[in-house]
Amino acid sequence: MNYKRYHKKLSYSYAIGSYPTIELFENAPDRSRGIIYHSKFASSKVKKKIDELSVARNIFINEDDELIEKITGKGNVYVVGVFDKFKMELDESADHVVLVSPSDRGNLGTIMRTMLAFGKTDLAIIKPAADIFHPDVIRSSMGAIFSLRVELFDDFEEYQSKFGQRDFYPLMTNGQTSLDKIKYKQPYSLIFGNESAGLDDEYTDIGQTICIKQSSKVDSLNLAVAVGIVLQNCQK
Amino acid sequence: MNYKRYHKKLSYSYAIGSYPTIELFENAPDRSRGIIYHSKFASSKVKKKIDELSVARNIFINEDDELIEKITGKGNVYVVGVFDKFKMELDESADHVVLVSPSDRGNLGTIMRTMLAFGKTDLAIIKPAADIFHPDVIRSSMGAIFSLRVELFDDFEEYQSKFGQRDFYPLMTNGQTSLDKIKYKQPYSLIFGNESAGLDDEYTDIGQTICIKQSSKVDSLNLAVAVGIVLQNCQK
Repeated sequence: MNYKRYHKKLSYSYAIGSYPTIELFENAPDRSRGIIYHSKFASSKVKKKIDELSVARNIFINEDDELIEKITGKGNVYVVGVFDKFKMELDESADHVVLVSPSDRGNLGTIMRTMLAFGKTDLAIIKPAADIFHPDVIRSSMGAIFSLRVELFDDFEEYQSKFGQRDFYPLMTNGQTSLDKIKYKQPYSLIFGNESAGLDDEYTDIGQTICIKQSSKVDSLNLAVAVGIVLQNCQK
Repeated sequence: MNYKRYHKKLSYSYAIGSYPTIELFENAPDRSRGIIYHSKFASSKVKKKIDELSVARNIFINEDDELIEKITGKGNVYVVGVFDKFKMELDESADHVVLVSPSDRGNLGTIMRTMLAFGKTDLAIIKPAADIFHPDVIRSSMGAIFSLRVELFDDFEEYQSKFGQRDFYPLMTNGQTSLDKIKYKQPYSLIFGNESAGLDDEYTDIGQTICIKQSSKVDSLNLAVAVGIVLQNCQK
């Protein structure tokens, strides 16, 4: 195997660590290329589970300490799942989370994990954006990405022309309706701006703008925290 | 000035970037030691504001590109505020957020920022824990730490012996009461476990355990997201 240190142009990527690797093999076995163990990966319960999954799904296993270190640049990683990048289309009948130009990999992964926790499985990403297949994203998603549909769009107009018939709820610091007063009409789209700039004023015209009531002492909430709060409120 | 690259034993630390630096000078001027500019820090509005604050508060200013690079290890930082570490005591009459052994600096800072957004100003941290004064924490708090009271405790018993008279609400994945059914009795303490292990079962005995309803497809929410959801629900 001649796997390289991750960069965006590769056709494959890595699930680093046992939790994301298990999520990969359980939820996206057809996209799995193989698995690399470190020789120190003891005969733990986790190894047994991964071994069973890889046998059941006919996934190639290799033990190669140097390769793991080359791929991850770290000394304390014991298992890496390799997977082919893939394209997905959103479900038209499902609710969507729409992220406009998210730039932070940790936030992006955390948002995927939070979506899955609250039963939202469709994520639209408006470019430019962080690379959804970067191992940092996979890791902070805890492998949740393998249970989601994620579709990329060149700009918001492209998303709008495909899904413009539904209700849009942009989250804005000056949004008009407080979170707990919204009566969502399904299927709907929750729209969030990026970490530093939020959404432009032009988004006020595309739907019912919502806000999270908060103190003026803080400019805005962390993006992943804001998404979590909105999704939890949708549950009720 | 002979400031060093940050490490835990120093008696001072750094607010890196203009936003945290402004928060430092506005909210904790008595703890401010000085400010270091990079020569590229143009005559922006931000510089003007920091200059005004430092004159009003008699804060020492220095322009030193090499020192900034030595301290931050980065090439793109234009302003650093230097401050003395400080000890704080929690307000007995205020609600508290209690974090048991938080280990991730980004989460810790994000939680501080989220607390300030929802008007909670008292944070108890049970050791072992991430270093609250690490520049990464200051940065992800966006300087919110300078508006909070943060107190460290050697173990939960120490916290309990000081504040045991109030109601405790531990958040647990198997908590008994759903978030939206809690009627909080002020002042109260919201208690959260660490990123990987959550709270031990022994915490079930100290108060009314709460849970955030979520899909079984995810083990648990990111800690900062969970804290954000609980704090937003307390607002109602």
